[in-house]
Amino acid sequence: MSARRSIEKAGKARGGGELPLVCTPLVGRTREALLEEVRAILPKKPDVLEWRIDFFEGIGRIPEAVEAGKALRALAGETPVILTRRSIREGGEKIPAGDDEVAALYEAACAAGVCDYLDQELSSEPRHMQRAREASRKAGIGLIASFHDFQKTPPGEAIFAKFTAAQAAGADVAKVAVMPRSLEDVLTLVQATLRGRTQLPIPLITMSMGPYGSLTRMFGWVFGSSLSFAVGKSSSAPGQVPIEDLRTVNAILRRSLGGAAP
Amino acid sequence: MSARRSIEKAGKARGGGELPLVCTPLVGRTREALLEEVRAILPKKPDVLEWRIDFFEGIGRIPEAVEAGKALRALAGETPVILTRRSIREGGEKIPAGDDEVAALYEAACAAGVCDYLDQELSSEPRHMQRAREASRKAGIGLIASFHDFQKTPPGEAIFAKFTAAQAAGADVAKVAVMPRSLEDVLTLVQATLRGRTQLPIPLITMSMGPYGSLTRMFGWVFGSSLSFAVGKSSSAPGQVPIEDLRTVNAILRRSLGGAAP
Repeated sequence: MSARRSIEKAGKARGGGELPLVCTPLVGRTREALLEEVRAILPKKPDVLEWRIDFFEGIGRIPEAVEAGKALRALAGETPVILTRRSIREGGEKIPAGDDEVAALYEAACAAGVCDYLDQELSSEPRHMQRAREASRKAGIGLIASFHDFQKTPPGEAIFAKFTAAQAAGADVAKVAVMPRSLEDVLTLVQATLRGRTQLPIPLITMSMGPYGSLTRMFGWVFGSSLSFAVGKSSSAPGQVPIEDLRTVNAILRRSLGGAAP
Repeated sequence: MSARRSIEKAGKARGGGELPLVCTPLVGRTREALLEEVRAILPKKPDVLEWRIDFFEGIGRIPEAVEAGKALRALAGETPVILTRRSIREGGEKIPAGDDEVAALYEAACAAGVCDYLDQELSSEPRHMQRAREASRKAGIGLIASFHDFQKTPPGEAIFAKFTAAQAAGADVAKVAVMPRSLEDVLTLVQATLRGRTQLPIPLITMSMGPYGSLTRMFGWVFGSSLSFAVGKSSSAPGQVPIEDLRTVNAILRRSLGGAAP
């Protein structure tokens, strides 16, 4: 699939590449709602779709979930799909399935060609991270190792440590989303991202959340975040801006940066 | 004049105020060109105009310059005017007048009601800073003490020291414009601005220049810069973005920030 690996490519892009990728979350609770969401969002031309499968009621029934995923995949065409089960402790939905069942679902989804990326939380058990890594490698797709803190922003050093932990876990991309309690916190996240981009080989996806954090969703790519989540139809986290606004700001930033664009 | 003191007011504005003020520079070399520039810019509704009088060929002939300023003032109506002679060492034009003549011009302009603010460089001789302060106080207008570095970005501590120096000089507003050599430098300026806003009573005008620095012209207000220079007709410094782009980004930022807007 030509769309695959686009985040890694974007992470390495320099000098007028396609950065930042804009990703819209899909939070439909049923197959029908999910596909309706894709149909509503695709005309807005997101670069990537994220299927937040913890919102999907059928998450505990693997064949049903995989079938919905295949339908999504077919509809999405060349647009890459990230498959993400976000746990409750990192801001996700309560689901009628345990971590082992999710691991099995990830494996089945990878084998069925449902997605181009898997998102696995860094806080998950090592055996689950390993299963996700193996399933993604076997399917030739990418692994995103993620970390979320909806309460606060850890110190820059701790954020940087999440990037290196993701790399050590064999991930292709590191994702960190944290909540600022001040504008200082917003700068801490941006600073850590800049350091990570300079010192690490893997692409990063970072954001500060909430109203203040919305700034990073718009200009974070300049400092090294390869992808920004924007609202296509529904928001999946606080501070996400509408895809149209993100595109508008990105175009203006790109014009202002000129040849200095990352 | 009701427009007076708007920068100070903006500096104190919180919760959906009129921040950031958008200021367009005027760089006409003749009276005619200057007034033509004002006519072209006013429909774009800048919040403030800056007359860069170092571009004005008649700067050495005080009555002529004051007369042009009065015509400008009449045209500008309620839009506040900053009167600025930028020296060569801080990025300005070569002028056929010495610092004493400029001080006398400032005094005449203040007395004639030409401007709402005077811009005096922190690097000027103490006696000239004092004359500008006295002239502005006598006329009931504001004084901006400014610092520019077109070569580099000093450390955050040094930037903060410029703010306190402006305050110590009796200025109503501190302005600092510096050139980044890296994205780190951009963050240094933003960080220092945030600290200055938190710790000092006077409003700040800050910007990082050039392509990277254009970011601060767009989102710097969130971190405490009360005013941003934008291109109405002509640019007066590197990295200035068109007024239309600035307005567009500001509207989106304000919407995203919601109640968290400074």
